[in-house]
Amino acid sequence: MDSLQDLVDHCWQTVRTAPPDGRQVSYIPALARVPADQLGIAVAGVDGSMVTAGDSSTPFSLQSISKLFALCEALSAGPEQLWARLDKEPSGDRFDSLMLLEHEAGRPRNPFINAGALLVTDHLRTVRGDAAEVVLELVRREAGNAGIAVDEEVAASERAMSHRNAALAHYMASCGTVDPDVPAVLDQYTRMCAVAASCEDMAKAALFLARAGQGVDGPVLSAAETRRVNALMLTCGLYDAAGDFAYRVGLPGKSGVGGGVLAVVPGQCVVAVWSPRLDARGNSVGGVRLLEELVRHTDWSVF
Amino acid sequence: MDSLQDLVDHCWQTVRTAPPDGRQVSYIPALARVPADQLGIAVAGVDGSMVTAGDSSTPFSLQSISKLFALCEALSAGPEQLWARLDKEPSGDRFDSLMLLEHEAGRPRNPFINAGALLVTDHLRTVRGDAAEVVLELVRREAGNAGIAVDEEVAASERAMSHRNAALAHYMASCGTVDPDVPAVLDQYTRMCAVAASCEDMAKAALFLARAGQGVDGPVLSAAETRRVNALMLTCGLYDAAGDFAYRVGLPGKSGVGGGVLAVVPGQCVVAVWSPRLDARGNSVGGVRLLEELVRHTDWSVF
Amino acid sequence: MDSLQDLVDHCWQTVRTAPPDGRQVSYIPALARVPADQLGIAVAGVDGSMVTAGDSSTPFSLQSISKLFALCEALSAGPEQLWARLDKEPSGDRFDSLMLLEHEAGRPRNPFINAGALLVTDHLRTVRGDAAEVVLELVRREAGNAGIAVDEEVAASERAMSHRNAALAHYMASCGTVDPDVPAVLDQYTRMCAVAASCEDMAKAALFLARAGQGVDGPVLSAAETRRVNALMLTCGLYDAAGDFAYRVGLPGKSGVGGGVLAVVPGQCVVAVWSPRLDARGNSVGGVRLLEELVRHTDWSVF
Amino acid sequence: MDSLQDLVDHCWQTVRTAPPDGRQVSYIPALARVPADQLGIAVAGVDGSMVTAGDSSTPFSLQSISKLFALCEALSAGPEQLWARLDKEPSGDRFDSLMLLEHEAGRPRNPFINAGALLVTDHLRTVRGDAAEVVLELVRREAGNAGIAVDEEVAASERAMSHRNAALAHYMASCGTVDPDVPAVLDQYTRMCAVAASCEDMAKAALFLARAGQGVDGPVLSAAETRRVNALMLTCGLYDAAGDFAYRVGLPGKSGVGGGVLAVVPGQCVVAVWSPRLDARGNSVGGVRLLEELVRHTDWSVF
Repeated sequence: MDSLQDLVDHCWQTVRTAPPDGRQVSYIPALARVPADQLGIAVAGVDGSMVTAGDSSTPFSLQSISKLFALCEALSAGPEQLWARLDKEPSGDRFDSLMLLEHEAGRPRNPFINAGALLVTDHLRTVRGDAAEVVLELVRREAGNAGIAVDEEVAASERAMSHRNAALAHYMASCGTVDPDVPAVLDQYTRMCAVAASCEDMAKAALFLARAGQGVDGPVLSAAETRRVNALMLTCGLYDAAGDFAYRVGLPGKSGVGGGVLAVVPGQCVVAVWSPRLDARGNSVGGVRLLEELVRHTDWSVF
Repeated sequence: MDSLQDLVDHCWQTVRTAPPDGRQVSYIPALARVPADQLGIAVAGVDGSMVTAGDSSTPFSLQSISKLFALCEALSAGPEQLWARLDKEPSGDRFDSLMLLEHEAGRPRNPFINAGALLVTDHLRTVRGDAAEVVLELVRREAGNAGIAVDEEVAASERAMSHRNAALAHYMASCGTVDPDVPAVLDQYTRMCAVAASCEDMAKAALFLARAGQGVDGPVLSAAETRRVNALMLTCGLYDAAGDFAYRVGLPGKSGVGGGVLAVVPGQCVVAVWSPRLDARGNSVGGVRLLEELVRHTDWSVF
Repeated sequence: MDSLQDLVDHCWQTVRTAPPDGRQVSYIPALARVPADQLGIAVAGVDGSMVTAGDSSTPFSLQSISKLFALCEALSAGPEQLWARLDKEPSGDRFDSLMLLEHEAGRPRNPFINAGALLVTDHLRTVRGDAAEVVLELVRREAGNAGIAVDEEVAASERAMSHRNAALAHYMASCGTVDPDVPAVLDQYTRMCAVAASCEDMAKAALFLARAGQGVDGPVLSAAETRRVNALMLTCGLYDAAGDFAYRVGLPGKSGVGGGVLAVVPGQCVVAVWSPRLDARGNSVGGVRLLEELVRHTDWSVF
Repeated sequence: MDSLQDLVDHCWQTVRTAPPDGRQVSYIPALARVPADQLGIAVAGVDGSMVTAGDSSTPFSLQSISKLFALCEALSAGPEQLWARLDKEPSGDRFDSLMLLEHEAGRPRNPFINAGALLVTDHLRTVRGDAAEVVLELVRREAGNAGIAVDEEVAASERAMSHRNAALAHYMASCGTVDPDVPAVLDQYTRMCAVAASCEDMAKAALFLARAGQGVDGPVLSAAETRRVNALMLTCGLYDAAGDFAYRVGLPGKSGVGGGVLAVVPGQCVVAVWSPRLDARGNSVGGVRLLEELVRHTDWSVF
């Protein structure tokens, strides 16, 4: 290919014409209504460049991608206190499993399964204030887009259906590992997940992860902590498909049931893809395929 | 022994002088304050007789014993609908386990583990109204004691600490097997568990289980349904100590963390015992010992 | 009904004409060839009476029913040493589950799941000699039939397919709870399960369980130990259908995948039924139905 | 530092003087006798360079490191057939867990837990012949050391204690996912694990993983397949400490209970470290520390 733009266009076209499969998330009515046949990509380079294709400027619901930003903010406020409360291992189970949590007495396996992200939310509440606002502030600043906001309809729709997360949070409260004010934790968690932003926003917002922690106004994380966040993304960022994603794509990534996936190429760029249809494990079918295509034509794999 | 009264006195004395061990329930402050060195027993005969010893007229918190009365009322309102929602098998796990529930997609293993009793509570709400009131009405009528009431201090204390039960109920709500109005279910469940009554009250209130279902004013359950409730008590009534209790005592029984245990001798009598110290599995140490002594000197074992 | 014979004939006829469902065990070729449309029953009274109907004198493969006789012999050799090695609780899981065993570090939940019966076999090897011979000797003597024997074809067929039991035994050996000579344990276990006997043989062989432990030549077990074995049968005798069997039949029972079921009516009789088709949990469809019919027309339920 | 040799010496010294903790593997007598206070390192560069420090030429027992070579040989014989039989996800459980295997009906979670490696062994038996010989041939050729051999004393010692692996293999045989000739699978697996080689041997033997698959005589794996093996090492190579190792070290790695750890720096080098004392999860304490030190002073982390 002559240029990255040509490559991105080529890969976008390849995936675009593939037969659509997968199913949109159904348990959040406001998300189930999003037109399914969209596919966007944005590549933000460490040099400030931006290459896009398709629906790259349409906002989508971050969902679990917000867990990545929440983790970074919790780490920047002091990693020791956070790691005293949860582990760093892949879970080997569904992202909302209660079994594992019971097995380990309320100590979540990692910050990207729902139990772990609820704990990170609770931690942010204590050390920083409203977790949803903390995440919003980070992504608005790094993306340079003050218009990024919580989709309140999605938040309300999701909060009403959040029985599984309520079970996780109450279980941790019963173990004393999460604050007894469970409804407050759930409110902030749900609003954080309902932040809406585009591929372009996301690629820019996460660019510090490819730049040794350097954000637009200064360090978001130290270089060492940034490497560790990337390591966590690689081992735990795609739930129980983390091993498969590492095998096929070979990049630190974080997905959400809104259909977005972020991938970090350390020292080079951040790629944000989005397509609403999901596979059985909750990851964007088109998004992962697009990343796979890109990596096949580049030396981006960390392996 | 010359008489049942002599035997009961003898057994009471034997257990009374045994070294006290076990620990009171600690997670409900109002229960932790109950004087631990109490031991009561009441034996209500199918002929209307009543034999007692020790602290037999002191009210104690029924806790899980109330699940037995809730089940009987749910069955009297139609067993088919109830059994469509839960199973009849021993759980093999702790009474508040979430693992089992997840393994079986929100369908509780039996009506005496907490998940099952929450579901019975939800069922009673639908078919009969407030579950706590339904239980109160049954035990007041059968015991002939209109003064039996909810200990509101215990109920409030327990409600504030009910995160584990909230986790179970929210999990079932997420599976669609329990009503989404989880707080209402928890309120009724907690108040039902906080009913306070004495050994004498309890022995009388459950006497219908030894009388083929006949209560003071007519049948509470059919003879066939009564046998089935007794079978459920024997296989599931003492949580993960049901096998041990069947082995040692050989009677259908139901225990509660308030320290009470009910045992049914079909065709003969109901025995209610109470002593606050609990063993590691949540059953009254003195109460189970007292039943063991009694059975050793009688032919009451169903085996 | 005029007599027990009339009742047994009536019940046999009722079940006989019901549409056959269930499937024969398939993983043991020699058992899969047994004609499926057989149904036998034998009722041995404590007074020495014998009432039969259908295929009551046709030998069938005892399979797990042999675990009951092995347990009795192990208990008669000293219950303390045995109970130091395993528990008495219902398992809540399939009879050949490895999960439970791992969860409890190689200590089986009860003597009737496969892991527990393998441990009982190992225990008998140590305290009494060849477990299969010990069981044979007991059932021959009590049934008064020296012709009862191991079906060596079934034993060989089963031994070749015993990978699941090998997994259980090796796991326990790895925990140090079973002898490292796993093949020897498996050989004896498999031969014990392959003992073939008829309903008439079985009802007589187990009659001591209805007679407070008294066998043909003297006590097999003490009265107290007999009650305890009956209690174990009731809580654990039909695998993960124990609760359902207690609910529907209300008698201590033990089933085998050969299609046989033994049920004890303490103080009155032992009923042996046999029909090869099994339900999803491995229990004889016709056999359990026949017991249900009988109990509906009698006061035999222990509840 | 002036050179890699200086850096390696410095790191070796730092870890060498740290207080020794951890415990040697105890369940294999022949390994328990190895002097514990040894620490070796070898760095093989893609340019053919070799830098060493400490006990870098002392042979140690590869144990689970052999699983890596077995996987590469199985992949080179056709990845599709292999991946049809097992998954690529981190296990989230101990390396010899049976629970997970039962949960997934005999399909191992990844090729590096014991169940997965037993399946890979079985696969190699079918497609290539004796698995231990296949591994030996690969490491001898790549390391250029025909003296690398199975330590038969370790193999015999381990085979006698291999009840846990026997349980895994028999369980898979019962599911039909592994050949019924379980003893043959176990023999080859145990001999493969008992291969003894030094850090220098290991760093050279695995160098193809840093060279896009190129071995001494030609490609061992394709470049794409090599990236995938590295990805599997990163997500699954250190058992239930994979996440922690990725977080602390950030390199694809594979450890063994003999105290060895291999780490791959794609495009640059392979590092082999060895020290016999293990942490609670079975990984070399000194080895992991030495890798951590090295990475702290270099840009080797893939993140």
